[in-house]
Amino acid sequence: MVRVGIINVTGYAGAELARLLYVHPEARLTSVSGRSAAGKPLAEVFPHLASYDLTLGEEIGDVDFVFSALPHAASAEALAPLVQAGVPVVDISADFRLRDPEEYARWYGAPHPAPDLLERAAYGLTELNREAVRASRLVANPGCYPESALLALAPAVKEGIIAPDVIIDSKSGVSGAGRTLGLAFHFAEANESVSAYGLTGHRHLPEIVQELTAMWPAAEAPEAPRPKVTFTPHLIPMTRGILSTCYAPLLPGAVHSGEQARELYREFYRGEPFVRVVDSPPATKQVAGSNMCLVHPTVDARTERLVVVSVIDNLVKGAAGQAIQNMNAMLGLEETSGLEMPAVYP
Amino acid sequence: MVRVGIINVTGYAGAELARLLYVHPEARLTSVSGRSAAGKPLAEVFPHLASYDLTLGEEIGDVDFVFSALPHAASAEALAPLVQAGVPVVDISADFRLRDPEEYARWYGAPHPAPDLLERAAYGLTELNREAVRASRLVANPGCYPESALLALAPAVKEGIIAPDVIIDSKSGVSGAGRTLGLAFHFAEANESVSAYGLTGHRHLPEIVQELTAMWPAAEAPEAPRPKVTFTPHLIPMTRGILSTCYAPLLPGAVHSGEQARELYREFYRGEPFVRVVDSPPATKQVAGSNMCLVHPTVDARTERLVVVSVIDNLVKGAAGQAIQNMNAMLGLEETSGLEMPAVYP
Amino acid sequence: MVRVGIINVTGYAGAELARLLYVHPEARLTSVSGRSAAGKPLAEVFPHLASYDLTLGEEIGDVDFVFSALPHAASAEALAPLVQAGVPVVDISADFRLRDPEEYARWYGAPHPAPDLLERAAYGLTELNREAVRASRLVANPGCYPESALLALAPAVKEGIIAPDVIIDSKSGVSGAGRTLGLAFHFAEANESVSAYGLTGHRHLPEIVQELTAMWPAAEAPEAPRPKVTFTPHLIPMTRGILSTCYAPLLPGAVHSGEQARELYREFYRGEPFVRVVDSPPATKQVAGSNMCLVHPTVDARTERLVVVSVIDNLVKGAAGQAIQNMNAMLGLEETSGLEMPAVYP
Amino acid sequence: MVRVGIINVTGYAGAELARLLYVHPEARLTSVSGRSAAGKPLAEVFPHLASYDLTLGEEIGDVDFVFSALPHAASAEALAPLVQAGVPVVDISADFRLRDPEEYARWYGAPHPAPDLLERAAYGLTELNREAVRASRLVANPGCYPESALLALAPAVKEGIIAPDVIIDSKSGVSGAGRTLGLAFHFAEANESVSAYGLTGHRHLPEIVQELTAMWPAAEAPEAPRPKVTFTPHLIPMTRGILSTCYAPLLPGAVHSGEQARELYREFYRGEPFVRVVDSPPATKQVAGSNMCLVHPTVDARTERLVVVSVIDNLVKGAAGQAIQNMNAMLGLEETSGLEMPAVYP
Repeated sequence: MVRVGIINVTGYAGAELARLLYVHPEARLTSVSGRSAAGKPLAEVFPHLASYDLTLGEEIGDVDFVFSALPHAASAEALAPLVQAGVPVVDISADFRLRDPEEYARWYGAPHPAPDLLERAAYGLTELNREAVRASRLVANPGCYPESALLALAPAVKEGIIAPDVIIDSKSGVSGAGRTLGLAFHFAEANESVSAYGLTGHRHLPEIVQELTAMWPAAEAPEAPRPKVTFTPHLIPMTRGILSTCYAPLLPGAVHSGEQARELYREFYRGEPFVRVVDSPPATKQVAGSNMCLVHPTVDARTERLVVVSVIDNLVKGAAGQAIQNMNAMLGLEETSGLEMPAVYP
Repeated sequence: MVRVGIINVTGYAGAELARLLYVHPEARLTSVSGRSAAGKPLAEVFPHLASYDLTLGEEIGDVDFVFSALPHAASAEALAPLVQAGVPVVDISADFRLRDPEEYARWYGAPHPAPDLLERAAYGLTELNREAVRASRLVANPGCYPESALLALAPAVKEGIIAPDVIIDSKSGVSGAGRTLGLAFHFAEANESVSAYGLTGHRHLPEIVQELTAMWPAAEAPEAPRPKVTFTPHLIPMTRGILSTCYAPLLPGAVHSGEQARELYREFYRGEPFVRVVDSPPATKQVAGSNMCLVHPTVDARTERLVVVSVIDNLVKGAAGQAIQNMNAMLGLEETSGLEMPAVYP
Repeated sequence: MVRVGIINVTGYAGAELARLLYVHPEARLTSVSGRSAAGKPLAEVFPHLASYDLTLGEEIGDVDFVFSALPHAASAEALAPLVQAGVPVVDISADFRLRDPEEYARWYGAPHPAPDLLERAAYGLTELNREAVRASRLVANPGCYPESALLALAPAVKEGIIAPDVIIDSKSGVSGAGRTLGLAFHFAEANESVSAYGLTGHRHLPEIVQELTAMWPAAEAPEAPRPKVTFTPHLIPMTRGILSTCYAPLLPGAVHSGEQARELYREFYRGEPFVRVVDSPPATKQVAGSNMCLVHPTVDARTERLVVVSVIDNLVKGAAGQAIQNMNAMLGLEETSGLEMPAVYP
Repeated sequence: MVRVGIINVTGYAGAELARLLYVHPEARLTSVSGRSAAGKPLAEVFPHLASYDLTLGEEIGDVDFVFSALPHAASAEALAPLVQAGVPVVDISADFRLRDPEEYARWYGAPHPAPDLLERAAYGLTELNREAVRASRLVANPGCYPESALLALAPAVKEGIIAPDVIIDSKSGVSGAGRTLGLAFHFAEANESVSAYGLTGHRHLPEIVQELTAMWPAAEAPEAPRPKVTFTPHLIPMTRGILSTCYAPLLPGAVHSGEQARELYREFYRGEPFVRVVDSPPATKQVAGSNMCLVHPTVDARTERLVVVSVIDNLVKGAAGQAIQNMNAMLGLEETSGLEMPAVYP
């Protein structure tokens, strides 16, 4: 039984890790920390976790595996000594996602706290990077938007059927903004409303660009195409879920119909337990509470564009579930271990 | 491994049974029926259940245990031959809840389809009727409102601290109305609105009265008090959850404070895995997707009334989870088997 | 044209006053204040009010009528000099609702800031107190819950058909909690959830008790009944609206059916433009954005109880609309002036 | 006072027309029809319209102006005799939007019921087609999605700053689907979920293409660009509102920043009472219940794309409000008459 710790369990991602680990047959949550609530029982901070008999500490105790749900910068600082000590970790924060520390500084407004660890980090989108995840002790869990967009686009990019003019229009539930209060997330403001944000540049954009660029065919060639990505996130009045609608021009002759596109996608994701290519447009409700990603590629024949819709639960496949999937892969467990519950519908 | 069948899996209660059984370690769903969708794969009817490799039949196949999620009347008709054949069953419908067939006829507008089976039936509120459930092969799963109200009131009634003037004001999510379409459940009508209904008599009222009457102290005495119950259900704009607020006059000297009431309730529910007495007013979100019932008794000292708030997920503790708990009890399994997942919060 | 000022326009009640005044044919909003946003254009603070060409000041300018939407205590302090100067005012805060300054101190935790003004204040539930409102220059606008409860109960109390054992179970949209941030009003927490609060005593309770006591038949007699009121507010996942369900025992022989109760209520509210007695249970959606209150009295014949359901928009009839209705009455305008728009449905 | 009739008042667009007309100073609703509810008082069909003393007829009575809120095909049939008789009409249905009857037949699956009337019809997007609307007696009210998309794109198209590769990603509240029941609009299915639909071609697409094509610079030239439009509507869990996010490549050197784009848009819409160009991303809540359209153009400098976000209330600016604006224009009234109320926020 793997003894697991969660640093900063007090946010939604931390709480979701605890929820999922409760039913994990091979791991047991034995230590949780959270400075603002240190000393409090977990059951008091989160009544839905009352079955745990754990108290929040200032620091994490002696464990075999660590998840960090700290904010960026603080996360790298907290994880650095653990990584040095050889403890395998998954970082839910953004600290180890961008490989280039200058890019990190540009988007996060401060120098990277542990740039020497960057080369040890694997990008934890298990489906697309499984061997690196398995081999690493430091895995950067993807952002929720990149998770949904990259799973939607990877088959088209890797199979070379689209030109690099990519538009990603994402719709997220409000829990993606976390538990920190803000007027935009005040119920009376967010309810019965939809808005776009991050129009001048969202921090998940460089992450998406980095990963799309790396997977583009002939990425190493000097004249390799640099994907031109526009990414627009939207806040919609629901708690959980992200739906991403992705648009790109089809290369001539690549694919002629939605059926053909879905065939190609099915082949690409064959055997993946957590990605399912579906024949009808999916709804986020179909994955709520679960680690599934549903992907629906279609072809707009009139304009010769590929349009791909994907749905995930932002707190599971977009955060805690993906993190546990990474843990499973890193520790040589079944990747599905503890993650097999169906979605909570309706 | 118990082979389980669900009759009429196509509604929300049926789908929720399938969701929960998927992670049950000692039972396996092997047969599902649903006339309107017979011949279709379960994965097509319910995309969130795509991990099942099952096709809906006209009838249920050969199984060790049966849940019926049929509407009333149809349910008793379908279950009667199974009960005769000795198959243990839990009926989610209302058919075996009322012990008096005339009362049934009065509220359901038709004679009871199988009155001779009524005396074999146990009322499946496991916490309050455990021995009868264990001994029965035909268990009537409680209605969702009675579940929430009876768990809120039972300690006060059985410990003799309240007079029989009981008011139950319940607030339910819209999934309680099922999957059948109706203008009141049309999104644009139900959203951003709250309304009362059933003011002239809801079918869950006689069920509540029957059970409260039976548990009232000295219920057998001829002059025993008949509880005077007013029950008002309300529809509120959320999918899952019931909160019941119950009011009754305290008997003189019975209990003087909320703390004292909670102490009495804690003692009453000691050891119950699915009922927790809490010190703060609970929210339905704290039990969403789980089989928990949170109960918060308080005392209005100014008016000498007991006020008890309880919350459940109407589809789990109010339907499918309670049904599986009953199955576990009937089959001698751990009552918590397959039901230990924490709530899906937020 | 009456020149109107709003002190502290920055909350929801203030903004709603501005919205409604925009279409008032006989009043014009000419001055708005709000310290935190002083100097900002109203259009910047509230984009939906961009048609106004007003800038927030530190103080209100020279006007003929003033609404205060300040928090309690601050409101009385700001209004005192205006009242002394003879400016007619409506106070949306709680400061002038309770006639007894000791009761105020008990519930609001500090001495009343202007106790000498209390006797000048009229309780602004226009339908029940019209003459006093018309005669006063200082009107205390009712709390949103009392508004809904008193309109539901007044006919029964004044016509002497109920005993004084009153239970009020209210369900409110989240905007009632205002624009100040709080975890309970964070979208991800409030959405898909319902909870009770104020179980140990909500500040609207003494206001309800005061008004019910005053209207109880023979209220002046020494042995007059003191109503025993239990009031439980609930937070439900919608932005606007309050539904109150009120319960009281019927006096013997008073009323025998819902029809009879509705007849009595219709007679009581005959000619009232903003209260309508309805034959079916109303929904808050039917009054959203409007100044209407729908009331539906019924009789639970089994238990001889009166059950009354009322619905209002908490920001209109429960705050800004009621305040304008009071202004109209105070200034001798048509009471409906500026308030005749139908509800925004769906 | 213009006497107005509404054919088929029983849907959401019809009810919204009645709501708005109630406060129109120069028009009075005097006749309403609706076959399924003929003979019923309007107050019974729609409790929020109880202030009207009108009964639904089988047919519309003698009026000066008619709105049709019938479904397509039925609408043209009902309007044809009125148009022939010289009664000015606005058709809310799709029947007179597409100028080419073959295109109509292709998308609506049946021949056009009144093709000879097509050349008399003006496309009623008043801001873009004012003179034609004023001169016409038969105005085709735009679809809700085209309304939001065309107002977002028109300045960029007409000023020649974008290439014709247009992507429109729209998010709509559920009331857009009307009052007819359907599983996708059942509360428990639509709530807490988002989904795309119409991926193989939505009926509003040809309408958008027709109008964009017509306004494209040098549209008459044989080699004029045909806009390549991909349009994806999404259903999101709210009742009212549409947000459209529109993407197009900027022509070289056209516009370099969001500020510049907004300057151009402001110039384009100067003097328009119902379109406001805003500096921050707008939210649908800022226009709920009102006839406003907020438009926010931005530039994605990294990819040289124009990204425009627009918001409307789908039932007002996307249907009934736009229809009344058209009536006002057709009758020579102030275009804003009866439409000046601010949005209902929050």
